[in-house]
Amino acid sequence: MSGQITFTGGAEGGWRITGMSAVAGASLAMAERLGIETAQVERADERTRWTLRGISSNMRYATRAELDSLARIQPPLGRSDCTCAALIPIRKSAAWWNLAQDERRAIFEEDSRHNAIGMRHLPGIARRLLHSRDLSEPFDFLTWFEFGPEAKGSFDGLLAELRATREWTFVEREIDIRLERPGAA
Amino acid sequence: MSGQITFTGGAEGGWRITGMSAVAGASLAMAERLGIETAQVERADERTRWTLRGISSNMRYATRAELDSLARIQPPLGRSDCTCAALIPIRKSAAWWNLAQDERRAIFEEDSRHNAIGMRHLPGIARRLLHSRDLSEPFDFLTWFEFGPEAKGSFDGLLAELRATREWTFVEREIDIRLERPGAA
Repeated sequence: MSGQITFTGGAEGGWRITGMSAVAGASLAMAERLGIETAQVERADERTRWTLRGISSNMRYATRAELDSLARIQPPLGRSDCTCAALIPIRKSAAWWNLAQDERRAIFEEDSRHNAIGMRHLPGIARRLLHSRDLSEPFDFLTWFEFGPEAKGSFDGLLAELRATREWTFVEREIDIRLERPGAA
Repeated sequence: MSGQITFTGGAEGGWRITGMSAVAGASLAMAERLGIETAQVERADERTRWTLRGISSNMRYATRAELDSLARIQPPLGRSDCTCAALIPIRKSAAWWNLAQDERRAIFEEDSRHNAIGMRHLPGIARRLLHSRDLSEPFDFLTWFEFGPEAKGSFDGLLAELRATREWTFVEREIDIRLERPGAA
């Protein structure tokens, strides 16, 4: 999952959608399956309800020390026992984007401990952040998570901690999409 | 010049190209005119030699103190006496993008004084930075400058200072395109 990725919500795709909820702002249309395309989707199938595009990009806040810590323990995507996934599209407010870099960094980590919170849930939960804001998409970020059934509680805890931070007061739209691999126990 | 912008090099457009030089890496095809489109160009004219897309985005390095200083003296685009312009597409190396945020910031400002150098040339030179990297474009940034004929020397000095910095050792492709408004003295 690198370069530009398009997620399609519809009747086709390798992941079964088990739940969708709007945490903030408007929801997306309900769909049964999620597809993940690595090339740009030229024309969506007529049963496609929505498409969301994002791209792997450089890190925006993490320091060298944080990146090195992360590199030591972050797991890869695609582990065979990770039959659960979540896709969480998020849009932050204009107030967030109008902040200077030092102000955003201070809220992100020194205040909200975003990286530190995430680190406590590794290596059980694998994660990939895709950027959408510069693509003129409806969301700023698409974060993809993979984990085993035993880590569902840890994952819910991770989200609850992040959503209680000051950083999250700048989140104006967030959808929580849960998924399972078809055929998984 | 906000949102997504497409620059077209070809036979049409509101600016006359007076010079094009490759400072680093491969050049672009020579063209007579530069057009600036605010909507996505669906299909380029057959005489269009190249198109470059970028988008206004949030600041990536500037602190609040720097943004406030900049806001006090930065001029708007479109001043009637600014009959000269430059478009400078730049791509930085993978080594740059693999650096952590604190490492890039330290090279950008504490070492290379990018913002401080630019500030010394205000308000004579108006500037707009567009981001292209997340759009999968051949360049990472497109910077547009406008100034009066009397500021040409100042502009050349600005570029010479920036190109001598440590930050510029990460620039692997840079084209310097100079322009004038047709009919301007």
